[in-house]
Amino acid sequence: MDNQPIDIAAYVAQVGHRARAASREMARAATAAKDAALKATAAAIRREARTLQQANEHDLQAARAAGEDPAFVDRLALTDKVIESMAAGLEQIATLADPIGEITDLRYRPTGIQVGRMRVPLGVIGIIYESRPNVTIDAAGLCIKSGNATILRGGSEAIHSNQALAALVREGLASAGLPQDAVQVIETTDRAAVGELIASPQYVDVIVPRGGKSLIERISRDAKVPTIKHLDGICHVYIDDSADLQKAVRIADNAKTQRYSPCNTMETLLVAESIAAKVLPELCRIYADKGVELRVDASTASILAAHQLSSVPATEQDWHTEYLAPILSIRVVAGIDEAIEHIGTYGSSHTDAIVTEDYSKAMRFLREVDSSSVMVNASTRFADGFEYGLGAEIGISTDKLHARGPVGLEGLTSVKYVVLGSGQIRT
Amino acid sequence: MDNQPIDIAAYVAQVGHRARAASREMARAATAAKDAALKATAAAIRREARTLQQANEHDLQAARAAGEDPAFVDRLALTDKVIESMAAGLEQIATLADPIGEITDLRYRPTGIQVGRMRVPLGVIGIIYESRPNVTIDAAGLCIKSGNATILRGGSEAIHSNQALAALVREGLASAGLPQDAVQVIETTDRAAVGELIASPQYVDVIVPRGGKSLIERISRDAKVPTIKHLDGICHVYIDDSADLQKAVRIADNAKTQRYSPCNTMETLLVAESIAAKVLPELCRIYADKGVELRVDASTASILAAHQLSSVPATEQDWHTEYLAPILSIRVVAGIDEAIEHIGTYGSSHTDAIVTEDYSKAMRFLREVDSSSVMVNASTRFADGFEYGLGAEIGISTDKLHARGPVGLEGLTSVKYVVLGSGQIRT
Repeated sequence: MDNQPIDIAAYVAQVGHRARAASREMARAATAAKDAALKATAAAIRREARTLQQANEHDLQAARAAGEDPAFVDRLALTDKVIESMAAGLEQIATLADPIGEITDLRYRPTGIQVGRMRVPLGVIGIIYESRPNVTIDAAGLCIKSGNATILRGGSEAIHSNQALAALVREGLASAGLPQDAVQVIETTDRAAVGELIASPQYVDVIVPRGGKSLIERISRDAKVPTIKHLDGICHVYIDDSADLQKAVRIADNAKTQRYSPCNTMETLLVAESIAAKVLPELCRIYADKGVELRVDASTASILAAHQLSSVPATEQDWHTEYLAPILSIRVVAGIDEAIEHIGTYGSSHTDAIVTEDYSKAMRFLREVDSSSVMVNASTRFADGFEYGLGAEIGISTDKLHARGPVGLEGLTSVKYVVLGSGQIRT
Repeated sequence: MDNQPIDIAAYVAQVGHRARAASREMARAATAAKDAALKATAAAIRREARTLQQANEHDLQAARAAGEDPAFVDRLALTDKVIESMAAGLEQIATLADPIGEITDLRYRPTGIQVGRMRVPLGVIGIIYESRPNVTIDAAGLCIKSGNATILRGGSEAIHSNQALAALVREGLASAGLPQDAVQVIETTDRAAVGELIASPQYVDVIVPRGGKSLIERISRDAKVPTIKHLDGICHVYIDDSADLQKAVRIADNAKTQRYSPCNTMETLLVAESIAAKVLPELCRIYADKGVELRVDASTASILAAHQLSSVPATEQDWHTEYLAPILSIRVVAGIDEAIEHIGTYGSSHTDAIVTEDYSKAMRFLREVDSSSVMVNASTRFADGFEYGLGAEIGISTDKLHARGPVGLEGLTSVKYVVLGSGQIRT
């Protein structure tokens, strides 16, 4: 269908209609059938590795011909390692507990009725993502296990890879007696399809946009369907007066340098005035050795200069910036109040950490910092579905409604009240 | 400010700015302070009963002068009974457990970090409602206890009553050392203020519209802020082949006739073919005695005719209609599959019940009916925050994201992840 003129609205309506029908079957699917579909897909991915790589080669050639940079081409590649990790990921999702149908808090009320809550799927999840084709498999796996149908819209640069992967998922679903249309890939690269999809609450219950900030901003602005998303990861570490210096250095180093591109990497370091001269020289020498550019306030600059460490002055814009690169902004603050104030003003409600041995300040930071993950004496890099024990994640939400923080199977579900009676009426 | 030309955008921005500032203080407010504010407001309401009734008299006179019908004027009246019930309601909210700060699921991960979830307020709740001024107190009470700030926009017909009530809440907040701006009433009756409010995500985190369907439809269509709402309550009772007939009659009678206007009242009765002739005559005689008009399909009509019970033919539109009146539509279905299909097609995802003694059919109905409350052998009239043990409710949600079913304190909160470490870094 690629590159052929089609009626986009009619096409999306058809896909949406099929997804809605499939979602009803998926909602009542047995755990064993869903797990069988995941395992069969994993087996198919291993079996068809060469087929997948042939399809992927079309996308890679097109990307190289278009002059895309090597990092872009790397993200696109279905290497043997990526293929094995997709298959293993599906098998791992199969081992997770099925959230659907779980009844919690079932209690007798004075009237004699029992009231509880049953976990149910959301329905149809639309996922819009860029380049990495393995998202196709991760997202499909999480949606299958959580009893949802999904409509996937990957980047046009990965269309052949995504279609080949989706064909194997659909084979897996069919082999388990589940509806193939529970997983559909949008088969046109026409951007209008995204516009249709995100404006179709009759077909889609929630949209998960994954990718660059501009993609996510555009989708959340135009969507008529609720979204689960985060825009920025402007994460902070605050080193308190009462910090253990060794922990402070270890955490602030790891939060910045373990990897530069993830959203949970620290972008701004805040240091209490009274401890700054003790901790910054050692820490900034590590950053310097690793080639991290430091953009700092005047207090930090003078401490660093005294130790022959170079830095550049931070501008107001730096405090607002998610670098995703070996760049770090540093600011000396009077104490915890100013740190919380700075995070509230410049942060993105993603992940923020305090390093302190002071109980009361740890408790205050936990309660008063309004971010999706708040940490004491741990690296911000832990903000992740696997590290939190969710088993897998479809993304991270910095919104407050519905899902917040790393979103795993539970974030793709809702609850309904169940009432068990024996003939009760209301009086 | 009423009736004077003002800059609505600037006014709403000012209110919103104050609410946002107050919400930060409320988020960290101690349970004791919030409870003290609730009790002080309750005391002030009892003390100032006459003042409230004088303010209310302005609204009542205006309503009578405008020729409003007696039911409308009744809803508006702050009688002694309404005043006592508002005060008692606040005291009851003070007895509820504080949801804020609760940490759940705090578990060690293999890395040594502890990961859990802390319940936090949403921030600023906008509540848009009609006529009944007691909503001002109920909503303010729930928002205070859940650590939120609230902006209240009641109907213009109740503006004097609402302002008088809000003044007492603000007095209660101040007496407990909490920010008065945690509860603000929009002081202009200009409709443009609603438009501004629902389009201001920078000031408002969620909008709860309460009132007639047209109000709610308009608000959810135009809102740029998430809403918690239900549009319709087209609730069903399905009497299964395996129903206990006595329970069936009792529940179907109560679900329709205990009160006609609530959203959880049954609007359509579905009856399994094999049991219809046994249950409908007795049941419909009760309806006839209570003056309930029956709009029925052909099968029901012939059963009723054989028992000299009158009915009118149902049209397709009847199955879509929330009567909120002594009118009931009745349809005979082949069995549970057709019942679930009918509810999926015509229902509003509010509350639906099955009457059956058959275990497997009860389980299927619970799992497969996709409504905010699903019941076995109980009257749909139980779908209510008090009956479910939530303590109070701010409304009922038929949406799937965030809150679903009766919304109490928990529905006005979110969670964040908390991570407690002892120096861990990610490797």
